[in-house]
Amino acid sequence: MKIQLDQSLPEDIEKRSFEIIESELKTYIPEDIKPIVKRVIHTTADFSYAENMRFSPEALEAAVKAVKGGVNIFTDTNMALAGINKKALSVFGIEAKCFMSDEDVARAARENKTTRAAASVDKAAIEGKDFIYVVGNAPTALIRLYELITEEKIKPRLIVGAPVGFVNVVESKELIMSLNVPYIVCAGRKGGSNVAAAIVNAILYMAGGRKQNF
Amino acid sequence: MKIQLDQSLPEDIEKRSFEIIESELKTYIPEDIKPIVKRVIHTTADFSYAENMRFSPEALEAAVKAVKGGVNIFTDTNMALAGINKKALSVFGIEAKCFMSDEDVARAARENKTTRAAASVDKAAIEGKDFIYVVGNAPTALIRLYELITEEKIKPRLIVGAPVGFVNVVESKELIMSLNVPYIVCAGRKGGSNVAAAIVNAILYMAGGRKQNF
Repeated sequence: MKIQLDQSLPEDIEKRSFEIIESELKTYIPEDIKPIVKRVIHTTADFSYAENMRFSPEALEAAVKAVKGGVNIFTDTNMALAGINKKALSVFGIEAKCFMSDEDVARAARENKTTRAAASVDKAAIEGKDFIYVVGNAPTALIRLYELITEEKIKPRLIVGAPVGFVNVVESKELIMSLNVPYIVCAGRKGGSNVAAAIVNAILYMAGGRKQNF
Repeated sequence: MKIQLDQSLPEDIEKRSFEIIESELKTYIPEDIKPIVKRVIHTTADFSYAENMRFSPEALEAAVKAVKGGVNIFTDTNMALAGINKKALSVFGIEAKCFMSDEDVARAARENKTTRAAASVDKAAIEGKDFIYVVGNAPTALIRLYELITEEKIKPRLIVGAPVGFVNVVESKELIMSLNVPYIVCAGRKGGSNVAAAIVNAILYMAGGRKQNF
């Protein structure tokens, strides 16, 4: 079969991809948040993210400051953990952790009749108050974050709220956006571990963890 | 903030999600492929997958037969690997592997001026002819599969073609669909490691690796 392939070198393909995204954007995206929005579109090929991403007023500044300060990252999904750029993390000495497969989390979830995602938030709250929490799967993680924040038990430096789905997903994001906490949220049903990882990577690159490539 | 949450038990939320997807489907989906299409929509909240998934005539049968026969799975992304249900794999004694972080693959890619994704396909071809190959990221993986298949060096039992992006992605999928090989492909630009993992999990569940939950 004859198909014309773009002969760009592997290292140029990401750059070319971002050029295509830029040329096809139908919505005005402010320059400061563009690296994040474009990376999410790059990871999904879904331009609806040009319209559904929400940033708290201080989100970008808080995110970059937290990363530069070496604040650790917790996430509710091993897929998002796998997708976060480890080399970029290491520039800042940051560890990213997911507790979802931990035996103590499974036990706590059973005992409290909750989800492992909610129990993982409780474990993060014990490990340290100073963290970025990244949700790419479970609305129950966002709901538990909401509860602990309103009870003044934790104060995350940033919440990335990108669970995906049909039950409690929209609502859990609205809860987070009602708080006075730095957040980056994909409003609506969409999101996912790939989206969550893309947001984190974009932040890491903005903070200087890697060349932005566009 | 007062928000009405669905009080379904965690184990019922997936079931409820699939009911919502079913009720909102605007396209006729044949019953046999529905478990796969619905699981992809479940993982993305993107109903465009109801229209863009392509199955070769023998794909479902080949997929289930391969899984029941314990054929191993190779994938081009550690995120997809993280998202594949390990408990369901173990029912069939299947191993899933990703070579992207392997030192020999990085070296081969440098030496051959290709991508690690393409070099990973070469490594899979050496490890064994009998495999399912799952692409959730790199069109170069699909292109390399196409080359080795046309050279009659490999004959994968199934190709899951779900790379995402803007450069060579559409074309690489068309190459695969031009072959006489069992495939499940997301036509167009969309796909991703989450989509790839969802397709694999749907196949594992169809083969009996877990209750389908709808």
